[in-house]
Amino acid sequence: MFYLSNTFQEFSQDYSNLFEKDNLDLFFQKVLVERNSQLSGYYDLPFKDNQEIFDYLEHNAKFLDSITNIIVVGIGGSSLGAKAIDALLSHQNNRKKIKLHFLEHTDPIIIQKDLRRVKYEDTLFIVISKSGLTIETTSLFKYILARFCLLKSDRKHHLVAITDSNSPLHKWCQKEQIQNITISPNIGGRFSVLSAVGLLPLAILGYDIQGILQGAKQISNNFFIKREDDILKKALFLAKNETKYPINVLFSYSTVFRHFNAWYVQLWGESLGKLDTYQQKRGLTPIALIGSIDQHSFLQLIMQGPANKTVTFLNVENLSQKPLYIPDISLDGLEMTDFVNQTSFNQLLKLQCTSTKESIMLQNVPVDSIILDTLNEQSVGALIFYYELLTSCVGILLQIDTYNQPGVEFGKKILREKFTHS
Amino acid sequence: MFYLSNTFQEFSQDYSNLFEKDNLDLFFQKVLVERNSQLSGYYDLPFKDNQEIFDYLEHNAKFLDSITNIIVVGIGGSSLGAKAIDALLSHQNNRKKIKLHFLEHTDPIIIQKDLRRVKYEDTLFIVISKSGLTIETTSLFKYILARFCLLKSDRKHHLVAITDSNSPLHKWCQKEQIQNITISPNIGGRFSVLSAVGLLPLAILGYDIQGILQGAKQISNNFFIKREDDILKKALFLAKNETKYPINVLFSYSTVFRHFNAWYVQLWGESLGKLDTYQQKRGLTPIALIGSIDQHSFLQLIMQGPANKTVTFLNVENLSQKPLYIPDISLDGLEMTDFVNQTSFNQLLKLQCTSTKESIMLQNVPVDSIILDTLNEQSVGALIFYYELLTSCVGILLQIDTYNQPGVEFGKKILREKFTHS
Repeated sequence: MFYLSNTFQEFSQDYSNLFEKDNLDLFFQKVLVERNSQLSGYYDLPFKDNQEIFDYLEHNAKFLDSITNIIVVGIGGSSLGAKAIDALLSHQNNRKKIKLHFLEHTDPIIIQKDLRRVKYEDTLFIVISKSGLTIETTSLFKYILARFCLLKSDRKHHLVAITDSNSPLHKWCQKEQIQNITISPNIGGRFSVLSAVGLLPLAILGYDIQGILQGAKQISNNFFIKREDDILKKALFLAKNETKYPINVLFSYSTVFRHFNAWYVQLWGESLGKLDTYQQKRGLTPIALIGSIDQHSFLQLIMQGPANKTVTFLNVENLSQKPLYIPDISLDGLEMTDFVNQTSFNQLLKLQCTSTKESIMLQNVPVDSIILDTLNEQSVGALIFYYELLTSCVGILLQIDTYNQPGVEFGKKILREKFTHS
Repeated sequence: MFYLSNTFQEFSQDYSNLFEKDNLDLFFQKVLVERNSQLSGYYDLPFKDNQEIFDYLEHNAKFLDSITNIIVVGIGGSSLGAKAIDALLSHQNNRKKIKLHFLEHTDPIIIQKDLRRVKYEDTLFIVISKSGLTIETTSLFKYILARFCLLKSDRKHHLVAITDSNSPLHKWCQKEQIQNITISPNIGGRFSVLSAVGLLPLAILGYDIQGILQGAKQISNNFFIKREDDILKKALFLAKNETKYPINVLFSYSTVFRHFNAWYVQLWGESLGKLDTYQQKRGLTPIALIGSIDQHSFLQLIMQGPANKTVTFLNVENLSQKPLYIPDISLDGLEMTDFVNQTSFNQLLKLQCTSTKESIMLQNVPVDSIILDTLNEQSVGALIFYYELLTSCVGILLQIDTYNQPGVEFGKKILREKFTHS
């Protein structure tokens, strides 16, 4: 089955030494060692049975049939994954008519707006936090507990938590008899979308989560069993050129990728921006764009600005929607634009993607493409796991810990001090 | 009146030579020469009377009172500015309950979604294009002309065009007797928000456009009359460090800045990414973030990734909304998070901004701050003009043409060829 066509060779003209079989084999062994070390548990997620999720769905079937809102309280890795996948698949018929909100901003304007029309009676609240100690999540969680009185015994079933096993939040749930699903502590937020963190809300929305995992499994098997080496090569190219091309642009052609873009930025930025074994600052800077709209915003800089960027184009070959055509109208004086008349907007978008790609390649900017044959659970699962594996591979080459985020702790400490001293 | 507090000195410890009076004077003269050259007309926009806009509002007063939708057909500079300002001011009481849509994506999924509930009877369509030859805009324009039969004589008042004087679109409007407002051809898209391009939709929405211009005028006068030198110094710092710090991060604390961020990215990227007088690739790469949410996404990379970024913090001192408080609840085992109890969410957001800023400064990342005292027409106009002036100043130092975008033409040419040859 074909999900991803990664035309990576476009990157790689002069890298034959780097791509020698021995070098690739050695690199592959390092990935295998990392996987087996259980430094991160995400490698195994495509192969889990997720019985806890299916049990929850079964035990709460009647209640879940009655809800019209899901409110996820969670930030960063606890929200970006499910949001990305829902946006990519929301055109599907199996998507139930449930509104999905994410309460993640401590911005009061947004909190008010998001909760304006929400009644607890038809709402499931999902609180997601590895520890329960994330300040935004816990503050928002307290707010909804108070606002909707969710600890009354007849309302507790409106609440479910997803958290690390034995975390403070997990213990609180057990004490308060709140339903919960635990995840393994070695699955970090930004690598957690294929665990209950992403899969539980997606399953309740009606998506085929087994299909998502199947797509991910395919990518895993291509890499670990079939030993396909496109991800290894791309990682080698990117890490080797860390200084020459410090910026990696993902140029996604369709607005449905907007939240996937945000997920990519977090995965890439927070995983790879690290001190390495030698305490050197390493990393690659992600930028994510939407085509064709950002052709009118960022393309000029790619074309004629500093040659410090690689660009990955991401688009969909076949959209399932009914095509929409540009009418065959000629306007006096504007005939120059008639060459696209009677084209479908989707065809126009695809050709804009190709044309932009070609124009960038003519500037010798390193370019590659990811083409999804269509948008469905399998292709989206594949895309997610492709990017997770790629991130791990680059991290190994940079000699960093891909899965921690020590740099964000400093600001949290300063915040706490401001409160303690004021 | 105080709108912007730019704590630029934080950037500038070791730049006393660069900031000597003679050097600043020379630089100021160059800006003055560019302004007087009329290379771009945006410098004068705060001082225009905009009689054409007020005439249009007066002649169409009854009709404009009846509409509930505005659909702007325009892309890039024709949409980003009005969208940014509306998002920053939409909490105000003078904002009429008119839905504002932007038809800019050729993505069929979005077109269908945006137009689903739109009826021509209660809608004003504003088509914005300097020439009328932008392929996305014209294709979408033809689509709405056909879908809503807007050229029927009794429907033409539902349409107004904003375009360059004597452009093909202008001539078409005259021939078809479509109302239109022209802008001067020397006002480029991304510098056009303070012309009719931004002001007409904003005025119809009920905003005080004179107030917006007043804020802009204040910044202009601070620069050109009072000779305040903070923008000159910041531009000198950024241009001088083009290679050392090729990436400029704008970290905006509140989701109301989301569209302003997109406007900034276009302004900075498309203006500054250019071949200079010596045909060298120049430019600075913009990245825009939203706090606190992107503390959980991008902050790690700023803290421990390569030292190739400057960061500008943007926040609002006083939000006019009623405060929303974190409840005084203590959850068993989660007491560590109680230190923020009874704080307002807005106060938390402000302290998160300060804490993050301090943590970044400790890593020796160059940081500055823009603080708006409050969000209103004046402060937003000031913010817009501040960024436009800063962009011009950096462009002068890079010895580029800040106002053109030759790099985006190549892809358009390839697109046209694909159609002609197929």
